[in-house]
Amino acid sequence: MAAAAALAERGRPLSRPNPAVGAIIVANGPVQGASGPVPCPSGPVVGQGWTQPGGRPHAEAMALEQAGNRAKGATLYVTLEPCAHRSTRGPACADLVSKSGLSRVIIGTCDPDPRTAGQGITHIQQAGIAVTLAQSKSAEDSLSGYLRQRLSGRPHVTLKLALSLDGMIALGNGESRWITGPEARAHTHRERARADAILVGGGTLRADNPRLDVRLPGLEKRSPQRLVLTGGAVPTGWHAISEPAEICGLEGIQYLFIEGGAQTAAAFLKADLVDRLLLYRAPILIGGGQPSIADLGLTGLAAAHHRWTFQDRRQLGSDTLEIYERNPCLPA
Amino acid sequence: MAAAAALAERGRPLSRPNPAVGAIIVANGPVQGASGPVPCPSGPVVGQGWTQPGGRPHAEAMALEQAGNRAKGATLYVTLEPCAHRSTRGPACADLVSKSGLSRVIIGTCDPDPRTAGQGITHIQQAGIAVTLAQSKSAEDSLSGYLRQRLSGRPHVTLKLALSLDGMIALGNGESRWITGPEARAHTHRERARADAILVGGGTLRADNPRLDVRLPGLEKRSPQRLVLTGGAVPTGWHAISEPAEICGLEGIQYLFIEGGAQTAAAFLKADLVDRLLLYRAPILIGGGQPSIADLGLTGLAAAHHRWTFQDRRQLGSDTLEIYERNPCLPA
Repeated sequence: MAAAAALAERGRPLSRPNPAVGAIIVANGPVQGASGPVPCPSGPVVGQGWTQPGGRPHAEAMALEQAGNRAKGATLYVTLEPCAHRSTRGPACADLVSKSGLSRVIIGTCDPDPRTAGQGITHIQQAGIAVTLAQSKSAEDSLSGYLRQRLSGRPHVTLKLALSLDGMIALGNGESRWITGPEARAHTHRERARADAILVGGGTLRADNPRLDVRLPGLEKRSPQRLVLTGGAVPTGWHAISEPAEICGLEGIQYLFIEGGAQTAAAFLKADLVDRLLLYRAPILIGGGQPSIADLGLTGLAAAHHRWTFQDRRQLGSDTLEIYERNPCLPA
Repeated sequence: MAAAAALAERGRPLSRPNPAVGAIIVANGPVQGASGPVPCPSGPVVGQGWTQPGGRPHAEAMALEQAGNRAKGATLYVTLEPCAHRSTRGPACADLVSKSGLSRVIIGTCDPDPRTAGQGITHIQQAGIAVTLAQSKSAEDSLSGYLRQRLSGRPHVTLKLALSLDGMIALGNGESRWITGPEARAHTHRERARADAILVGGGTLRADNPRLDVRLPGLEKRSPQRLVLTGGAVPTGWHAISEPAEICGLEGIQYLFIEGGAQTAAAFLKADLVDRLLLYRAPILIGGGQPSIADLGLTGLAAAHHRWTFQDRRQLGSDTLEIYERNPCLPA
């Protein structure tokens, strides 16, 4: 399932408005059980698929097409419940799977789309195919934008900060180029390429006039939609929202990437609209510079604790990237 | 040598004013070379020593005493060059080693004390014992306070900060208890127990009236001398210095531990008098709180880079400790 989730990454973000799904079909190998041969997905991979740009074909359709007759008796791993609703754009995956000859389907997580929501599983089971719901963390993580939209009606939000060891994003005079090195900045461009939209505050837009595009070879066309949090007018090519809650009404945005500044970071954090922190930290001290986050209105330290869970850390040149996630036990 | 450096830690800080040295004597094992048996320290450890409280006996004396006759033909690993100067408090270690019957001495680093400074090595060589100078990083690290005093006339300085992810040491209203958890605070007490003196700023002293003692079972008596950076009067039990450079005149302090606040941190950093950063970081965001370091007078980011080298990281409960060292390539 982790391999299927990794395949799904290839569909992100161009699968929008559809979820980026991954699918792998594994042939059964000859495994001998106590009372004779037991079907077991230990054979070769006979099909792989991921949601294609624009949302079609779906991952399951691509993997089944690739497998052809070799799907007979095989096992499908798919990160999301196959869709149950027919569309003018293509067949329902639950139909395709039901007619495939597969013996077993392992599903990463349910699709909360009311047109599917369990009906995909039922449909496949009725065709005599064994279905297992894995409730896989890697599948859920790979679908976090889609699931957040379906369950909370808003995009999955990443807040990115590029900091000194003492938490500053600029000198007192505003100089911020560069705190982090080229490896960390390239990683930020990769994260931009995975987002549907990027947002900055009005102050950052006026001060820096940032391009916010993706400057990685081959990924230039992945540059996301540009949003700005401001009550004022914005230049052509930018879409303004006047408060964080307005992200709830944005169509087709599964992944929102927030790049600053301190007022914008604070506004989204106060509204509890941040799911993930990307902290790029350089081994420097600034002292008396510009803090990364404006006032959050905390009246006690207790309220600051238990909100963030460490997820991952990696070295990027001399900088360190730390990823924290909003504590999954907090109410959504 | 790393094992001898770890032994030396047992002498810290009570060996003061002497360096905390570690020594291990290893018997030669029967190793066969191309042209017959070759002496090689592959046998058992026959003696171990570390500088005792008050500075005597020295590590070599303790290890030789323990080894007795088994020192004959053996190899001594010692973190610092054995002393060459006789004292009313005990014999010179170079004399003891010369008469020991050891076949070989491996020395971590030279002693810059002008009464030894190479004379210890010469004396031992003249006794027909092979001497190797290892220039060991672990030996030098374990002697950093002593070496800093001898070479720069000041203590080795550690600056400790307990921070949120966004680099704050307190809420805007001053609340700072607690940012880090019990594991990190216990680690700080252990670091206090390894220091000869702790320093805070006058503001921290007035605001928090900190005890700055060691609250670890069995280590209560290790509570270090208490210093305060202030131009004003100080309570009994505290020693005042009016500017960072005054640490150069402090007798018997090899390791100084600075605990805050932001003005004091900035004063020592501006004076380039910090050798090591201990950053305890809690997984919380504060936003609009009190920054850890006041203005450093930087006019450009270039001056902030290449000053700190990552040394170590460890998890302490939900907090992370990161240790950085002043870039060893910078002029002292």
